[in-house]
Amino acid sequence: MCDDPRVADQRRALLVDTTPLPDDLALRLRRQLTFLIEIDQLKTVLRQSPLVSAQRRENDAEHSWHLATMVVLLAAYSDEPIDVGHTVELVLVHDLVEIYAGDTPLYDTAAGEDQLDRERTAADELFGLLPEDQAARLRALWDEFEERATPEARFAKAMDRLHPLLLNWMARGGTWRTPGVTADDVRARKAVIGDASSELWNAAQRLIDEGEARGWARSAPDPDRAHD
Amino acid sequence: MCDDPRVADQRRALLVDTTPLPDDLALRLRRQLTFLIEIDQLKTVLRQSPLVSAQRRENDAEHSWHLATMVVLLAAYSDEPIDVGHTVELVLVHDLVEIYAGDTPLYDTAAGEDQLDRERTAADELFGLLPEDQAARLRALWDEFEERATPEARFAKAMDRLHPLLLNWMARGGTWRTPGVTADDVRARKAVIGDASSELWNAAQRLIDEGEARGWARSAPDPDRAHD
Repeated sequence: MCDDPRVADQRRALLVDTTPLPDDLALRLRRQLTFLIEIDQLKTVLRQSPLVSAQRRENDAEHSWHLATMVVLLAAYSDEPIDVGHTVELVLVHDLVEIYAGDTPLYDTAAGEDQLDRERTAADELFGLLPEDQAARLRALWDEFEERATPEARFAKAMDRLHPLLLNWMARGGTWRTPGVTADDVRARKAVIGDASSELWNAAQRLIDEGEARGWARSAPDPDRAHD
Repeated sequence: MCDDPRVADQRRALLVDTTPLPDDLALRLRRQLTFLIEIDQLKTVLRQSPLVSAQRRENDAEHSWHLATMVVLLAAYSDEPIDVGHTVELVLVHDLVEIYAGDTPLYDTAAGEDQLDRERTAADELFGLLPEDQAARLRALWDEFEERATPEARFAKAMDRLHPLLLNWMARGGTWRTPGVTADDVRARKAVIGDASSELWNAAQRLIDEGEARGWARSAPDPDRAHD
């Protein structure tokens, strides 16, 4: 890509452009390092969830590491047998497209509508930095995660929903307190955990029920507007 | 541990203590979630390396995610065959002990002396939050990483040294500019890359050589003190 001046003129500026790698590195490795440097930006994509251990929002790189570690420790709760290494790969790459497409908050319905189009364009551009075989492989991992048609993808998605639930529990509400969101909305968004693990879904429901009982998630929609 | 009042009186306060999980969750899962919440703190352990994409230092969780992704994309450069999934698990957990023991900068020789003792105590305490089988498993992964006696551990360590080298390259020096550190010191610290991959070690040397040629790493030690 960098070697074709017609493409170079149109393409997005890359992080590596500020300090180009030596020309004499092998092209395959140069492409891989270019990609690995570019995805440093995952550390700057902020999520809605608050950290437990600091007064700031979590970023996608931190979230992806946490999910991967959850997969390693919780895989035995999957209702179907899963390949742990493959599931870890799914969560490591699942948010990469947000580097170019941005994070879409779970409870933001409007932004969700064109999310897939934006993310597909981002996937083509970002994974396209890699050698073709690896670009195709990462695209396949991302597609698998999104389609949830394999036990590994269903478990990866379950971790992606269980993780912020833990953060919201520790924050005594967190994004559950988003205006207009009710405990039933939270249950509806988290129900995919049950597609992967009945035991983890039971535990998640227990936390949501308890959160609702403590007033960390609303029981009724828009209480202030009920008398409008 | 939480159920024994004698131990509870002495033990370190855990993050989960601020918002305890419901008592009726199964004990095994409660221990796993307690650990997963506790390790949120990896996101607050700062490393010396500067990010490429923002004006701040990297934290251990971001670093661990980046290493895991490097393993997935660069595993074929290993001189010996490696199990990719196992290597990813090594890098996911390799820095966890720093939550209780802190990060020891690569070029800080004094702090390095009691590092292993501090980290072993931290490993006992942190991994001890998990169910026994998983505590033993994570301890074994961490020991394997530290001992570098397997091809997977050697490759994991190589990633751990290659990653900050890329960040320092992008920062046009970064921690290479630490007072008293020379390009030869950098080469000596990075030589373990060659224990895992001759091709990646060649590339790493090329970056260090070029960095030295550009003045991003010193060629001679303590030039200001040469006439003392």
